[in-house]
Amino acid sequence: MNAMTADANLQQIIQEFGLDFSGDIKIGGHYIPVIRDGHYVFLSGQIPRIGDEVLFVGALGDDFDVAEGKHAAAICAVRALALLQRSLGSLELIKTVLRMTVYVRSAPTFTHQSEVADGASDVLSRVLGPCGVHVRTAVGVVQLPKGAAVELDVMAALTDAAA
Amino acid sequence: MNAMTADANLQQIIQEFGLDFSGDIKIGGHYIPVIRDGHYVFLSGQIPRIGDEVLFVGALGDDFDVAEGKHAAAICAVRALALLQRSLGSLELIKTVLRMTVYVRSAPTFTHQSEVADGASDVLSRVLGPCGVHVRTAVGVVQLPKGAAVELDVMAALTDAAA
Amino acid sequence: MNAMTADANLQQIIQEFGLDFSGDIKIGGHYIPVIRDGHYVFLSGQIPRIGDEVLFVGALGDDFDVAEGKHAAAICAVRALALLQRSLGSLELIKTVLRMTVYVRSAPTFTHQSEVADGASDVLSRVLGPCGVHVRTAVGVVQLPKGAAVELDVMAALTDAAA
Repeated sequence: MNAMTADANLQQIIQEFGLDFSGDIKIGGHYIPVIRDGHYVFLSGQIPRIGDEVLFVGALGDDFDVAEGKHAAAICAVRALALLQRSLGSLELIKTVLRMTVYVRSAPTFTHQSEVADGASDVLSRVLGPCGVHVRTAVGVVQLPKGAAVELDVMAALTDAAA
Repeated sequence: MNAMTADANLQQIIQEFGLDFSGDIKIGGHYIPVIRDGHYVFLSGQIPRIGDEVLFVGALGDDFDVAEGKHAAAICAVRALALLQRSLGSLELIKTVLRMTVYVRSAPTFTHQSEVADGASDVLSRVLGPCGVHVRTAVGVVQLPKGAAVELDVMAALTDAAA
Repeated sequence: MNAMTADANLQQIIQEFGLDFSGDIKIGGHYIPVIRDGHYVFLSGQIPRIGDEVLFVGALGDDFDVAEGKHAAAICAVRALALLQRSLGSLELIKTVLRMTVYVRSAPTFTHQSEVADGASDVLSRVLGPCGVHVRTAVGVVQLPKGAAVELDVMAALTDAAA
């Protein structure tokens, strides 16, 4: 993957999804969205928010089906990548994604958290190619900030060029 | 921040909150509260427990409001810092907090997990100043150990002086 | 502990539990079970699945008691160690387990998540001895993939021999 590809991939998905990250990527609370320490970078939990609007508010199994949940998870992943891109300058500095934890707001009987999380994993793979490889944990939670359907966080390793 | 400040800040908050950590900081189960590996230190999940007593037992939205939840989260953070202080000798060895995950025991309709988590982020900022900077994930869970209202865990990076 | 012990310990527990990991250790979704970066190794969330079957489907407090939950957590831990063994060649390359997060599918009134998680911590201690030391977070979630009773993930540090 050359120096333009991952960043171009992200731009293409943002356009496909009809998203607009041109303003600030807002986060709530008294913390920061991205922190880097040496070889590693960590992201705060991302919900499917664009500007002030959370695009998917509700629970999987009650308000959304698996396909909608996958799309919500995909938007969280796009948002995570957009934050990484702004923080690092280019997604090409990501060596490996490492870990993603996906919290799926779930009705008591909804057991397809892994399928929902696939929506996010697919974005990582499509944008970053083999560098998007990661381990993953998907769980079903009773609520999420602002009633979001999905929240996810990410830890990634950086290339030596980023050091 | 000089070598006394962070530790003195913690002592002041402990007194303000009327807490007493003079005895052992009890944790349950077959694991340890703090582990250090090279440049990094990891903490077990902390609930708002002082000695044998959990100070906030109940769910946000049912039993506690946001202000109470923030105070519960703040006590978890104080406890986390007290454990780090005992383990490291001084909080001045913390370079950056890095990541905090905050689990908020939530009624099904409670969506202010981020606001609750701010109670913990504020403590980190007040005690550690710029070294308290962190990324954060806040989620709503159906239950927590001993019925606690909040549980949080922390990963931090250490200064070279700690190596 | 000599070079055979941890691996032999795992084999003994697998036999005691009557488990069969001789086939592939299946995982779902578009991610990988184990990833290694330098000194660290990360595992995807493990449920008590053997082959295609999830052995404990249900919630603690509704469908399972603490003893059953501990056994479910123990199977998750055995599965995690089996994956690490396959990935690393030998468990003797593990220096320290570091962190385990245990998600316990919980009825709203079930508050013994720590006791359930002890089932997993005990396996780590029994197989790895002092190298099984870890920090831990246990929380109660409303659902888990495939309705599993427990899910856990692990981060471990490797010995210099693994580098």
